[in-house]
Amino acid sequence: MKDYCGLFGIYGHREASMQAYLGLYALQHRGEESCGIVTSNGRRTYQRKAMGTVSDVFDKAALKKLKGHLAIGHVRYSTTGSSVLKNAQPFVINYKKGTVAIAHNGNLTNSIELRNRLERDGSIIQTTMDSEIILHLLVKAKSDNIKESLIETLPQVRGAYSLLLITNDLLIGARDPYGFRPLAIGKLGESFVLASETCALDLIGAKYVRDVEPGEIVIINKNGLESIKPFSPTRKAFCIFEFIYFARPDSNIFTKNVYLTRKRLGRALAKEHPVKGADFIMPIPDSGMYAALGFSEESKIPIEMGMIRNHYIGRTFIQPSQHIRDFNVKIKLNPIKSVLKNKKIIVVEDSIVRGTTSKIRVKTLREAGAKEVHMRVSCPPIISPCYYGIDFPTTKELIAPGHSIEEIRKFIGLDSLKYLSLGGMLNSMLLPKEAFCTACFTKDYPEKIKRGAIPPGLKK
Amino acid sequence: MKDYCGLFGIYGHREASMQAYLGLYALQHRGEESCGIVTSNGRRTYQRKAMGTVSDVFDKAALKKLKGHLAIGHVRYSTTGSSVLKNAQPFVINYKKGTVAIAHNGNLTNSIELRNRLERDGSIIQTTMDSEIILHLLVKAKSDNIKESLIETLPQVRGAYSLLLITNDLLIGARDPYGFRPLAIGKLGESFVLASETCALDLIGAKYVRDVEPGEIVIINKNGLESIKPFSPTRKAFCIFEFIYFARPDSNIFTKNVYLTRKRLGRALAKEHPVKGADFIMPIPDSGMYAALGFSEESKIPIEMGMIRNHYIGRTFIQPSQHIRDFNVKIKLNPIKSVLKNKKIIVVEDSIVRGTTSKIRVKTLREAGAKEVHMRVSCPPIISPCYYGIDFPTTKELIAPGHSIEEIRKFIGLDSLKYLSLGGMLNSMLLPKEAFCTACFTKDYPEKIKRGAIPPGLKK
Amino acid sequence: MKDYCGLFGIYGHREASMQAYLGLYALQHRGEESCGIVTSNGRRTYQRKAMGTVSDVFDKAALKKLKGHLAIGHVRYSTTGSSVLKNAQPFVINYKKGTVAIAHNGNLTNSIELRNRLERDGSIIQTTMDSEIILHLLVKAKSDNIKESLIETLPQVRGAYSLLLITNDLLIGARDPYGFRPLAIGKLGESFVLASETCALDLIGAKYVRDVEPGEIVIINKNGLESIKPFSPTRKAFCIFEFIYFARPDSNIFTKNVYLTRKRLGRALAKEHPVKGADFIMPIPDSGMYAALGFSEESKIPIEMGMIRNHYIGRTFIQPSQHIRDFNVKIKLNPIKSVLKNKKIIVVEDSIVRGTTSKIRVKTLREAGAKEVHMRVSCPPIISPCYYGIDFPTTKELIAPGHSIEEIRKFIGLDSLKYLSLGGMLNSMLLPKEAFCTACFTKDYPEKIKRGAIPPGLKK
Amino acid sequence: MKDYCGLFGIYGHREASMQAYLGLYALQHRGEESCGIVTSNGRRTYQRKAMGTVSDVFDKAALKKLKGHLAIGHVRYSTTGSSVLKNAQPFVINYKKGTVAIAHNGNLTNSIELRNRLERDGSIIQTTMDSEIILHLLVKAKSDNIKESLIETLPQVRGAYSLLLITNDLLIGARDPYGFRPLAIGKLGESFVLASETCALDLIGAKYVRDVEPGEIVIINKNGLESIKPFSPTRKAFCIFEFIYFARPDSNIFTKNVYLTRKRLGRALAKEHPVKGADFIMPIPDSGMYAALGFSEESKIPIEMGMIRNHYIGRTFIQPSQHIRDFNVKIKLNPIKSVLKNKKIIVVEDSIVRGTTSKIRVKTLREAGAKEVHMRVSCPPIISPCYYGIDFPTTKELIAPGHSIEEIRKFIGLDSLKYLSLGGMLNSMLLPKEAFCTACFTKDYPEKIKRGAIPPGLKK
Repeated sequence: MKDYCGLFGIYGHREASMQAYLGLYALQHRGEESCGIVTSNGRRTYQRKAMGTVSDVFDKAALKKLKGHLAIGHVRYSTTGSSVLKNAQPFVINYKKGTVAIAHNGNLTNSIELRNRLERDGSIIQTTMDSEIILHLLVKAKSDNIKESLIETLPQVRGAYSLLLITNDLLIGARDPYGFRPLAIGKLGESFVLASETCALDLIGAKYVRDVEPGEIVIINKNGLESIKPFSPTRKAFCIFEFIYFARPDSNIFTKNVYLTRKRLGRALAKEHPVKGADFIMPIPDSGMYAALGFSEESKIPIEMGMIRNHYIGRTFIQPSQHIRDFNVKIKLNPIKSVLKNKKIIVVEDSIVRGTTSKIRVKTLREAGAKEVHMRVSCPPIISPCYYGIDFPTTKELIAPGHSIEEIRKFIGLDSLKYLSLGGMLNSMLLPKEAFCTACFTKDYPEKIKRGAIPPGLKK
Repeated sequence: MKDYCGLFGIYGHREASMQAYLGLYALQHRGEESCGIVTSNGRRTYQRKAMGTVSDVFDKAALKKLKGHLAIGHVRYSTTGSSVLKNAQPFVINYKKGTVAIAHNGNLTNSIELRNRLERDGSIIQTTMDSEIILHLLVKAKSDNIKESLIETLPQVRGAYSLLLITNDLLIGARDPYGFRPLAIGKLGESFVLASETCALDLIGAKYVRDVEPGEIVIINKNGLESIKPFSPTRKAFCIFEFIYFARPDSNIFTKNVYLTRKRLGRALAKEHPVKGADFIMPIPDSGMYAALGFSEESKIPIEMGMIRNHYIGRTFIQPSQHIRDFNVKIKLNPIKSVLKNKKIIVVEDSIVRGTTSKIRVKTLREAGAKEVHMRVSCPPIISPCYYGIDFPTTKELIAPGHSIEEIRKFIGLDSLKYLSLGGMLNSMLLPKEAFCTACFTKDYPEKIKRGAIPPGLKK
Repeated sequence: MKDYCGLFGIYGHREASMQAYLGLYALQHRGEESCGIVTSNGRRTYQRKAMGTVSDVFDKAALKKLKGHLAIGHVRYSTTGSSVLKNAQPFVINYKKGTVAIAHNGNLTNSIELRNRLERDGSIIQTTMDSEIILHLLVKAKSDNIKESLIETLPQVRGAYSLLLITNDLLIGARDPYGFRPLAIGKLGESFVLASETCALDLIGAKYVRDVEPGEIVIINKNGLESIKPFSPTRKAFCIFEFIYFARPDSNIFTKNVYLTRKRLGRALAKEHPVKGADFIMPIPDSGMYAALGFSEESKIPIEMGMIRNHYIGRTFIQPSQHIRDFNVKIKLNPIKSVLKNKKIIVVEDSIVRGTTSKIRVKTLREAGAKEVHMRVSCPPIISPCYYGIDFPTTKELIAPGHSIEEIRKFIGLDSLKYLSLGGMLNSMLLPKEAFCTACFTKDYPEKIKRGAIPPGLKK
Repeated sequence: MKDYCGLFGIYGHREASMQAYLGLYALQHRGEESCGIVTSNGRRTYQRKAMGTVSDVFDKAALKKLKGHLAIGHVRYSTTGSSVLKNAQPFVINYKKGTVAIAHNGNLTNSIELRNRLERDGSIIQTTMDSEIILHLLVKAKSDNIKESLIETLPQVRGAYSLLLITNDLLIGARDPYGFRPLAIGKLGESFVLASETCALDLIGAKYVRDVEPGEIVIINKNGLESIKPFSPTRKAFCIFEFIYFARPDSNIFTKNVYLTRKRLGRALAKEHPVKGADFIMPIPDSGMYAALGFSEESKIPIEMGMIRNHYIGRTFIQPSQHIRDFNVKIKLNPIKSVLKNKKIIVVEDSIVRGTTSKIRVKTLREAGAKEVHMRVSCPPIISPCYYGIDFPTTKELIAPGHSIEEIRKFIGLDSLKYLSLGGMLNSMLLPKEAFCTACFTKDYPEKIKRGAIPPGLKK
């Protein structure tokens, strides 16, 4: 599962590129495959985009060349294919009204329709990114004023977008009317900061002010922050999966803390689906840790680290050509036999996607001597694709659609398997249940999905 | 704090270099700065050594060039200076009796004396490594037989050594009579394996057989394993710090499990130094986790992850040029205010070296709202240098020598500070207390340290 | 002085990318700063573009990934700035009618006008390359057929262009009606080849067939080569500077051999401006060699290599921080005192641009003992910018405009200085004098240069 | 054919490493495969050695780290095998008397004998370099004084050596009693310079003083230059092949200019073996140019560049997998048909080794239309190996031993083939004929070659 982006913007800082670097560093979990920063010193723009993580792509010299007091940055999971670097963001263009750079988190649901219309008019669209579509619309807008152009443009696009834009003298943030993806406002001294998650504010020492609201455009320049709300009010649809899995535990998103929410999910899970007589709870490091702590608090069953994570796992590991059974799981997590032997274990997972990784881990636990393995999952089964920015596997690859829980239990090889209920999940949230999009669990999409809408991972 | 080496050797495997690569990968925590593998196909040797981690240095093509069915590998922390690559191991020479490669973990206490003697005789010693000294002695030995040469040579060297050697048809392992450093024997099918820790056996699917015993030389060739014990019996002196801090929790060393030992240390700590009315225990991820789990079990106080680790921290992080307060701690661990606010916290540390990192972390906790911070340390204060292979800071830089515990508490800014007692530590071990070297806590060295002996970090 | 491009295209070869690599290798002198190859296998396109020379950018693996039987390639001098890689060619787009890639040599004189018109219509132009302008026009053309689109588009662009295009099943070559830049047609077995100079045909063993004619479009597909001439006839304007300086001596361009032409220039120079009693002629290696041979043949004065070229000069040479006088000249050419001492020397140059390099060389010759130094230049003084693809220095930086020949002689420090006359140059050509553009020597541009036309080096 | 080394040393310069870099740059033709510089600031040494050319290996930062006012540098052709970097020079050791670095040009004829003796005494010899052997002898010398140690050591080694050594306060140069390899002394301000060829002095602006004499040791320290001549006088044996092929034409070696010598060889060749009615002389660029100029002057036949060299040929060129006939020759030299067609050509070569390259070139000339091709070679046939530092192919691979000149003519495909006679060659020299080693042409070695002596290319 992959989200599509992390966003960071800053206005009015002497070392804007350095702050953007730090902000993206904190948001690296939102996209590891490419990243970019665009800055402006009021006269011209500077940019660097490349494949790789933030620390692969930027060094001191590179940051120094990115001059100016405005910056936006972007981290991204890219789709496969030869054109990956071309698809890196932020996307920058020079046009008759000047220079504009854009960074986007989310997924449009009418991008194909818009693309066809633009190409019929003779536009050349060079990437598969929604952000390029938005730029083309912006450039064709009648007004010479970027604010008015945005008001004219944004109502034409549908779906999920948290956006950052800079020109030579403005930083703009925008969020679609449903508010699918997060976007927070902070202040660092006199500088304004925009970031997908508050952990980016924490790292640079900025103070959280408030979220960009759903349907709000904020325009930041030397006179301060101006807010526009050009959309008529609608229901909200915050992505609940950000709380379940994506966001960093130390972040607040949609105004609420992720760590505390995950512990509440773990507690609700322990209440709904207790396991009698278990020896210990085993979290899957690191993402399952937080729900496991909640489960442990509620159930009074202790935690043991039955499998130890290898800290040196990187992207470049060589696969042995000869057969080492379940090698990929072993290289990441090594079981401790002396801990597992003859034990009845509760494994807490945040979610099950394909089920294959869980299957191998359970097998490894049993081979190391575990007597019983019971799995508890801190959300309901995932049954439907996301059109708003999360790259789930296709419905065919997901295990939950088309299999009963009993079938999944057997496939993974468990003694028992229980998922948190929809109600249990929603009650664990620190926001009203109406505020969320839960379509991946319920098929209940906030807006009608038209023919031609494509989940993000299929836009090649 | 740095240990000096991890060792891995294999005899009789079709893809010996690949196994060595995997073994070193599992032992990466024992040395991140340089690594090397030497193989032999019975006729000639192949080698690759370079600065960097195992995955930096080796790729598929490089492993393919390392032909043969014998291999030894080495990971290492190197000393500073221009000659670092030269000091990478294994060290290989061709001499009148053939080719021999050596890899060494530990530190000799009479290397200067031996070096002077060799240089007086006209030998040219090119590195600062103890292993080169051993090789020169081996070459000057009267016998043409490597086994006899070793029996003649090893009694001349004093201090700590776990050694691996290969010639074109032999794999040899040796451990000094005190047994300071670990060395385990495993079998993978018909192949013999030697490794510093059992986690390396686990990764390649090898079965643990037994440890190379203190004072034992094992000689492995196509006829199997031959054991020699040329030394008269002496006391044992296993490095207790391997259990406290160095070894991987999923390893067994000196035949005992590290994770279980650390939990026992945590439990003993809770018994010796309880904290009344604490809200929660905060482990320092990841190394403090295991003692914290023991402390929590004993005290029934829950664990909270009050600070979250950034997973992307690498060696190449750029320091912001402008001031971000306590940046280095923040980039690694971000405190969660909603968890820490107004809480009375127990921080469990495995050890305190300089005290400076602890001081900043405690300050960060307080700024995030913590009301009281109590620190518990799972070993006694470190007061004396190690001559056997651990690179502690110099006595001047260590905080414990020359400061009372009360002074340390004030320096770090704690509400209370307690160390586990020597007895508490030794009782937590799963081996008899006489088996250990505890000199860094007690100044009680297993053998008299002669003038001229130098701790490993000072050999420049 | 820099030309802007070298072009190579091939249709119908099993290893089209390898042939393109070789062809570009032979054309490397036409652009050292970036290069690219785009191929098609009839279904999709593959591309690789990067900063650097052909051998820096391509290796065997890279060529293998460029699949297909069609290819076009491009070498280029890039302008400075951050967007250099973006400006590398060939330029590829996907649009409603499919994929098209373009490579361009030359310079348009109405590109700003066209760009403004396109941007007014809402197009986003991402580079500063003329080739992108041509693509936008092509995409906006009414016809769905690329041939008809070209016939509609090319009459809108003015100035110099030799063009290559590929789609998934076509290779197209085109040359502007004046024929400023060269483009030759060859055959390699059944494959058609297009290349800027015939040396590229020689290297791959292709046979020269004929030139693409000025104003001709050739369309090559599986049925062979179709020729269209959509323009009304006009005068020709072959770049005479290609013969003087740019093209490789072993090439034929505009159907005539470069080496023989340069020798004829040298002979004419010797006739126009003999030097009595000279000891020898010294060519400036390697470019001045050919005119020097002609001068020697005509004058019967022998050649001596008074300065020796260092073969290892690359781009990465480090400047010594301390003063070594005239270091840059010395590192390239070392004078031989025993040859130069007390000699009266004729130095043959192909052209003088700023005069600064010549000045230092002459000083070096005198310091090595030369008694008299007479310079002969195989073309007239350069007095006017080129709008058709050669990046001369600005008029201010050129030495000839604003200085008399006597002033230039003094500046360089010569005993005498003579330039070949315009008539002498034109008479040395193997083509009628009306065929050439000589504007850089005469200010007599083939078409009226409109306000807003910009020489290539100033397009930033 | 490969020589083994270029040497450069400097004493008393503020930026000694930069001077060494420049000096090695000028000497790059004497060894392209590895290079190194060792410096000293009077207290400690600094070194950098790596595979690659001087400009590959050193950049500004690297030179800055090489501190001090003394430096020696070395360029080298390395033998194949895995241990190539280990064999890079200068070779540095620390021993009881301090630090010493050595760089060597030449080849010892009793190295195996010396190596066996050293290994019997327990020395570990790590490389295949003669310079390591010399160091071991030096270290075992009885005296504590390096001057006396050299006087004790050098008489034990036989064969060819030009040597440079530095300690922390001395620069030493030495040349074997025969003087096989060149070594010049220069001064740059107050600094002393030692270099294989004078072109290195020219580049840094140093003045040539004199050669280090055969059998002389020069010791340079803050008190100036001291000369010792510990050997009894013997005949001289300057390598005549340095004049024929190796040295740069702009250098003086053995006190005489190379360019002038080569022209004299060309003139003698024209006198001995004229060609009637030839249209022109074609030099093989660049090495055959100088003899060709002499041949042209003597014969009054003009020179034409019938084949043009590609300037971009580097080490990384990819071979096309499909067959392009005689590709390797073509990529380097492209024939010009318009020049060659129907012509009777004299090709001047400096030497013929295997004959295979000449064969292909002649074939290419004929295919380009040449009517007659006559080859003239500016030295006699090479019939015997060199034991003094030149890596000729083995006698089996050389064409001259075992074939008559008529057979060679047929093999290469020539209309006529003539070699310069031994007398003609010796008379062209600017030194008395007794001064030279001509063993490769005559088998007349200056000293009896003992069983066990090995030509340099075979020391693996």
